[in-house]
Amino acid sequence: MKAEIIAIGSELLIGHVVNTNATYLSEELNLIGINVFFHTTVGDNPKRIKECLKLACERSDLVFCTGGLGPTVDDLTHSTIADFFNLRLLEDEKQKAIIIEKFAGREVPKINYRQACVPEGGQIIPNPVGTAIGIILDRQIKTSIDDKTVGDKTATVITFPGVPCEMEAMFQQFVLPYLKIRLQKEGDSGVIVSRKVKLTGITESKMAQIINDLSQDENSTLFHRDNPSVAPYATLGECYLRITARAESEHKARNLIQPVQMEIENILGEYIFGYDNDTMQGVLAKMLREYNLSIAFAESCTGGLISKLMTDIPGSSDYTKMNIVTYSNDAKEKFLQVSPLTLEKYGAVSEQTAQEMAEGLSKISDADICVSVTGIAGPDGATPEKPIGTVYVAVKMREQTHIQKLDWHSTRFLSREMIRELAAKKTIYTVYKLLRNSLINSRTGLARNA
Amino acid sequence: MKAEIIAIGSELLIGHVVNTNATYLSEELNLIGINVFFHTTVGDNPKRIKECLKLACERSDLVFCTGGLGPTVDDLTHSTIADFFNLRLLEDEKQKAIIIEKFAGREVPKINYRQACVPEGGQIIPNPVGTAIGIILDRQIKTSIDDKTVGDKTATVITFPGVPCEMEAMFQQFVLPYLKIRLQKEGDSGVIVSRKVKLTGITESKMAQIINDLSQDENSTLFHRDNPSVAPYATLGECYLRITARAESEHKARNLIQPVQMEIENILGEYIFGYDNDTMQGVLAKMLREYNLSIAFAESCTGGLISKLMTDIPGSSDYTKMNIVTYSNDAKEKFLQVSPLTLEKYGAVSEQTAQEMAEGLSKISDADICVSVTGIAGPDGATPEKPIGTVYVAVKMREQTHIQKLDWHSTRFLSREMIRELAAKKTIYTVYKLLRNSLINSRTGLARNA
Repeated sequence: MKAEIIAIGSELLIGHVVNTNATYLSEELNLIGINVFFHTTVGDNPKRIKECLKLACERSDLVFCTGGLGPTVDDLTHSTIADFFNLRLLEDEKQKAIIIEKFAGREVPKINYRQACVPEGGQIIPNPVGTAIGIILDRQIKTSIDDKTVGDKTATVITFPGVPCEMEAMFQQFVLPYLKIRLQKEGDSGVIVSRKVKLTGITESKMAQIINDLSQDENSTLFHRDNPSVAPYATLGECYLRITARAESEHKARNLIQPVQMEIENILGEYIFGYDNDTMQGVLAKMLREYNLSIAFAESCTGGLISKLMTDIPGSSDYTKMNIVTYSNDAKEKFLQVSPLTLEKYGAVSEQTAQEMAEGLSKISDADICVSVTGIAGPDGATPEKPIGTVYVAVKMREQTHIQKLDWHSTRFLSREMIRELAAKKTIYTVYKLLRNSLINSRTGLARNA
Repeated sequence: MKAEIIAIGSELLIGHVVNTNATYLSEELNLIGINVFFHTTVGDNPKRIKECLKLACERSDLVFCTGGLGPTVDDLTHSTIADFFNLRLLEDEKQKAIIIEKFAGREVPKINYRQACVPEGGQIIPNPVGTAIGIILDRQIKTSIDDKTVGDKTATVITFPGVPCEMEAMFQQFVLPYLKIRLQKEGDSGVIVSRKVKLTGITESKMAQIINDLSQDENSTLFHRDNPSVAPYATLGECYLRITARAESEHKARNLIQPVQMEIENILGEYIFGYDNDTMQGVLAKMLREYNLSIAFAESCTGGLISKLMTDIPGSSDYTKMNIVTYSNDAKEKFLQVSPLTLEKYGAVSEQTAQEMAEGLSKISDADICVSVTGIAGPDGATPEKPIGTVYVAVKMREQTHIQKLDWHSTRFLSREMIRELAAKKTIYTVYKLLRNSLINSRTGLARNA
């Protein structure tokens, strides 16, 4: 089945809201084997919304609309769909009652009742979070070329409110089951399975070149192969290869993926930190939990971001001893016992300061692993010797302090925010790698400090 | 001038990347008076890219394309544009030399040379960050209805790579100046100015109802008025009203906005925390700096997020004494001297624990304002009395500790991430409001603890 997504709302076209709904729906639809061919965004304008609906209904089987179901006069999705298909707009009494109930005695603003109006024939999608309901509407439409009718086809229009948590709840609870039943009925049960291999420390183009070379190599599992396909992507500080297979069943698709994944692991293993939804903080947390180790962080330039990332993981209090943000020199001296002489002689952004921060942290926190990070995120504070993006990480574990200077290919046009994000991710990854190597050495009897 | 944006890349259609580029470009274009009417996303497929180009060139004057300029075989934007307009694809020698230079002696992967190929006649947009160049290409195209040619029009196609920092640098340095000159030449110098009024503690629908009522009230500046227009929007924990005016000059537009803004301030003043790009942490930071006050945070459930937000602001070390994340009971006892009895009797998420955290923080940090936050972000740890989303904030200043229980309308379907974000924002706003009121009281001689 071919699908496309229309986002309706002028706020998207003036750049005030990012269209994350299209991303969410696309990912979910792909997982059940429904291909998404287009995303379109259009403003709160009935004529232009109808143009988009016409095009979408002609070329796709499923047309998902997000937004425009709120209570305000700008919210035109249901009235425009009714108009486009020549349907009446009916007030749903049940939904009206639900709106009154949801306001729990508070006065219902008049305009909220607009949210009970849906195009005739639409099957209602309840909203478990808010008051905007969606619909599933099947319509026969005539496709035309040169204004001449060439045939009938059915298009299903499915509407959601624009608020992501409402849309997601409605999708998961009502639309996903509907789609699964429909896929089964129509015998369209081929599945697409994909596996993300996540890497860091390698550029996207180098990775792409390697994959490209493999596709020319007759000894490779990727030789002239388009199922599974392998596609490279990059985000800040990470890149990944997405292996995608199509097959009759999930099991068969996974069997197609496996040898390709193994070949990639053989060639690029040193850069791989995880798979699918793994995050750097997630793989580190898993290792800490597995070996019953505690950790503490002292952050300067990242200002709490590492701590935020590490505690994104539920249950992180089990291994988190203490995280402290010592942003000023004062705080570094007072709480971490960094020597004023060190700060004066080498500066707050230096190997020496990083080392004293980690060691000071070790004294107060008593954690198995103590990590410090200090750097220049900009826009101020840079010198010719220490440009924006200079970051030092110190990791104290097993009586040894490892110090590493982080760097990246180019710091030009990296914003303060991006530098902080890169520094946080690379710090977490540095700890993960040190710990992994140390554990490997321990197990093979090579540990020097075990 | 009418504009639209085409994002090219299958990664967007499978939901692996969010299309933030369309948001960025839309905001920038609106600021100089260029209206964006559509966003479209299409995969790496020449036929479908050409369908999108045809539609866009027929209905818009400016067609911005993002993505598909990378070095891999999936990157088809320039070759497809050349094909669509019947142009040759030429290798630009100068760009080839730049690519070699950028690799600084490292071997250039063969496929990177694809990035030097551009459609004939395209004016090159240099890339100050990476190796993917864009083009500005003016083409006459024939518009047709029913396959009969009805006229000629010019469309300008402008291409950017998909990597946001590269696209933004190219837009700011090269495309924005080009557009400004063109707008002036074409006498299209009407401007759109908008002002965001930012609020918290009020729902979008209540705000929308108030604005709607004003538009019916003949004593209001908003009575039957569409210039300036006022539109309500909502994001997590915040909402805003965007007042937009069109006029011949910026000055005239601002004069249209002013009385409307004043009326909104009179009616909704208690909910307003800032304007335009203001953030809650920004307004708090400004106040701390202005009154030379220092601050410290002890975070439990927010796990470093408040600290991260506060240090997003350059120069925040001037007023940040110390931020500490005490996620476990252990850490609360050890570093903040929270009594084990308190933890046992009332629990880690309680008024009493919040209070002892703030007071303990005050002892170790000596900051003017000491803030603690403890709560249940989920998915574990909830009880019937303390459901997910229960959060306590304590603020110690001027020898007094103020304690507040945060709450929000519904915690259903709020994820751990959303609860943490709401808790962080509302904590910052709580501090801001307490401080503002305390400063107002000091000035008017009503301060009890000054």
